[in-house]
Amino acid sequence: MSLAATDVQPPPIYPDPAELRRAARTGEFTTYTIGQVPGFVHANLCILPEAYAFEFLSFCQRNPKPCPLLAMSAPGDPRLPVLGADLDLRTDAPQYRVFRDGEFVEDVTDIQDLWQDDFVGFALGCSLSFEEPLIEAGLPLRHVDARADVPIYLTSIDCAPAGRFTGKMVVSMRPFKPADAIRAIQITSRLPNVHGAPVHIGLPEAIGIDDVTVAWQCGTPDVREGELPVFWACGVTPQVVVEAAKPPICITHRPSHMLVTDVRNAALSIL
Amino acid sequence: MSLAATDVQPPPIYPDPAELRRAARTGEFTTYTIGQVPGFVHANLCILPEAYAFEFLSFCQRNPKPCPLLAMSAPGDPRLPVLGADLDLRTDAPQYRVFRDGEFVEDVTDIQDLWQDDFVGFALGCSLSFEEPLIEAGLPLRHVDARADVPIYLTSIDCAPAGRFTGKMVVSMRPFKPADAIRAIQITSRLPNVHGAPVHIGLPEAIGIDDVTVAWQCGTPDVREGELPVFWACGVTPQVVVEAAKPPICITHRPSHMLVTDVRNAALSIL
Repeated sequence: MSLAATDVQPPPIYPDPAELRRAARTGEFTTYTIGQVPGFVHANLCILPEAYAFEFLSFCQRNPKPCPLLAMSAPGDPRLPVLGADLDLRTDAPQYRVFRDGEFVEDVTDIQDLWQDDFVGFALGCSLSFEEPLIEAGLPLRHVDARADVPIYLTSIDCAPAGRFTGKMVVSMRPFKPADAIRAIQITSRLPNVHGAPVHIGLPEAIGIDDVTVAWQCGTPDVREGELPVFWACGVTPQVVVEAAKPPICITHRPSHMLVTDVRNAALSIL
Repeated sequence: MSLAATDVQPPPIYPDPAELRRAARTGEFTTYTIGQVPGFVHANLCILPEAYAFEFLSFCQRNPKPCPLLAMSAPGDPRLPVLGADLDLRTDAPQYRVFRDGEFVEDVTDIQDLWQDDFVGFALGCSLSFEEPLIEAGLPLRHVDARADVPIYLTSIDCAPAGRFTGKMVVSMRPFKPADAIRAIQITSRLPNVHGAPVHIGLPEAIGIDDVTVAWQCGTPDVREGELPVFWACGVTPQVVVEAAKPPICITHRPSHMLVTDVRNAALSIL
């Protein structure tokens, strides 16, 4: 869900997702995926022990806007063929982030040594998939133009709890002129598997954001005169909720270092 | 496009559009149509001499949001069978409004004596058709709950001119909480033939409305804390533009006394 880190130079663009995954698998590609394999879905990844899987799956089912589940692996099976025939959850993200008991431990380039035979992998939709059609429609994306991360906020909106998974919704914010905001709502409404329509527009205080000029994480908000802030449910929500649940181990992608899939963004459009 | 007049008692509800048209034709039904024939399209009506018809049709083509053209009659022919097999433009609206040289002359219950063999009738979509699915979706409509007209405003948005027809866009305003506003955008986006998606949301000053608490015509605005004003293109736009063009004669429906058609609102949905 996050955009370009600025501390690395962009590598050559891979046009083919299987090629990029192969490069990630061999250690040749270890950086952020923004701009890579245009047109294909970059997924958020969350890997949990099976003892947490049913509750997390329930959380996704109850909170489809922040947690749009694209695919789930069988327990212990590192493959996810629905997203790529060769896809290997242990090696194919450029970098992984390891948490133990809810605490960050390290970022690594593969998790072959950490893989457990009770691991279940969840691939969740990411806002990059809806930003692409917004850009194609000619809508300006402030943070993309600024080559910065999208600003995100912790809201007062309660997620629907599921067992140990409970918390507030995190949202990303993109400013638009009102007519463009309406168009952005139309376009993202077609894409419920990648966060879908916004959850809020204007009036940030109504969702617990007292100062929209200060992001909770990531980018620097820049809402200008004549613009409305538009808020989408964000894939950071499940990360925050999972960390708070403190499972003994949880592995995600490193932010911006997404799991690239063979699914086309356009294939997710319901209309 | 307008809602209930408050100076008359509502008559019995006609469930069938042909029955209501027959009653209008015989003079039995001469009042406003709000609430009548639920589920069927109530149309705005504009009748012009053929010498103005091509320019007005061009205006509709260039301004589909304020002027969503449902049907147009052949010159001199008072029938409009695409909207009702028996439909007669001379008798079937409950009341008509007559303008000469852009000036209001009178309201009448039929125009048989005024009909000219060069008249062309235009039936335009009306917001009643999109308010119905909003209500069905459980979205509160402030002016409907208050049994009042919807407030409308003259904006600074230029319509695309067509010959003698030129002017600013008129909009109607409905206040919604942000999440409901997003839902209202989704629902009305499906209905481009009855004004479609809003043209603006929030920030009324950006479209030349300096004080949203004061309507230009019709209802009393009531935007409450935690709500955004949402603005749709309004069918009063063509009336204003036509009046300004000062054709020697123009006949419209009397506001709120719509031409009821056999077309179902749901049949207009593009999705």
